[in-house]
Amino acid sequence: MQMSLGQLLKMLGLGAVALTLGVEWVNWLARRLRPWRGPQGPLKEVLFFPSPITCTEHLYSPDRTSPCLCPLPHGIDTSFSRLLEHLLSACVSLELCVFSFSQLELSRAVLLLHGRGLAVRVLTDRDYMSITGSQIGALRRAGICVRHELSKVVHMHHKFALVDGRKLITGSLNWTATAVQSNKENVIVTEEPELVQPYRDEFSRLWEANDPANHNHHLPSSTATKGLVTHGNDV
Amino acid sequence: MQMSLGQLLKMLGLGAVALTLGVEWVNWLARRLRPWRGPQGPLKEVLFFPSPITCTEHLYSPDRTSPCLCPLPHGIDTSFSRLLEHLLSACVSLELCVFSFSQLELSRAVLLLHGRGLAVRVLTDRDYMSITGSQIGALRRAGICVRHELSKVVHMHHKFALVDGRKLITGSLNWTATAVQSNKENVIVTEEPELVQPYRDEFSRLWEANDPANHNHHLPSSTATKGLVTHGNDV
Repeated sequence: MQMSLGQLLKMLGLGAVALTLGVEWVNWLARRLRPWRGPQGPLKEVLFFPSPITCTEHLYSPDRTSPCLCPLPHGIDTSFSRLLEHLLSACVSLELCVFSFSQLELSRAVLLLHGRGLAVRVLTDRDYMSITGSQIGALRRAGICVRHELSKVVHMHHKFALVDGRKLITGSLNWTATAVQSNKENVIVTEEPELVQPYRDEFSRLWEANDPANHNHHLPSSTATKGLVTHGNDV
Repeated sequence: MQMSLGQLLKMLGLGAVALTLGVEWVNWLARRLRPWRGPQGPLKEVLFFPSPITCTEHLYSPDRTSPCLCPLPHGIDTSFSRLLEHLLSACVSLELCVFSFSQLELSRAVLLLHGRGLAVRVLTDRDYMSITGSQIGALRRAGICVRHELSKVVHMHHKFALVDGRKLITGSLNWTATAVQSNKENVIVTEEPELVQPYRDEFSRLWEANDPANHNHHLPSSTATKGLVTHGNDV
């Protein structure tokens, strides 16, 4: 069966259309199969500190209509306001694993999320939880579940947070005013599953390892009652 | 011009072949245009510490044929050996921006890379560079270009490295023996350009900002000669 030039061109034209549609379809399918990916893939954001000090009042109460009258600059995006935004984007849970926590606005954000009924868990360092200005006591008093590194010779030096179990905030930044306002620091915010999952596993592992109830079972009863109950309870 | 059923089928068949070849070609092109991407995209690895102490001798001299006779465990992959491997994979350059640097094996690796002729630059904290056990002096004496945070009131608290300008190593881990062997720490190793590029920019920015030569121009000559030349020279 012979084919005319016209038929050949028509066939090639239809093939090209089919190719274009096919590529589009494959792309569409790839996007549908990975719902967490935006046009550039999962969220990857880097924040550097120190951050300028600006008003962040609108982030705590986005429905507020009256303007804030505080003397700080308003309406400016900073590394710190981005960090707060990511933290306050939590809808379900917040897992926090942080060496030193004394920054008041971050503490206010964590208390706000707890007040909204989110599952908030905080893991911190044994020595640094009781330094001057530490917010760990305030979190505990508010009823937030707090555990600390039980070992007396090891520092829990992580500084990461998991927002709704799918957004990771991690870096060099301790949650202190000095770190936010003075130091040279970095924070990565990402929803990349290959990065988020190991941190989720690490949080679960450390949370269990520092459960004072479990720990007591492995110790002579005298040690358990003497040292760990005071420091190691969850509230 | 009418088309027979046979011609239509042939056309659809050719279209399908063209579609398949086209999709393959697009995938191939995408891979070629992004040579850093493996099957799962760019490298993303998470390392947790503390790390067991094992022999890492083979990483410094991979061509060595005689077995190492040291008493440490051999042939075991640990977080620390992975960190060393990534560091020693450098072929062209190493930019290091680290708050505290006293771990001897990491110092040996940096000295080795410098000895191989790589462009090594180290940026560190003003106060911590002179603590007991700091390796900064040894790096400077070996001729490595070292700068430190010039401000007296600010800490350079980063802990990141850039290997060949395309692999980022960053996290909570200071380059100290305690951090590696005792603390709960995390490190991300990635070649994700969206993460690497901001750190490259930050390193360049901080490197320039802490160039003592530039700094001297902006200060009264008395201040420049008094304080900065002693601490701020590159070697």
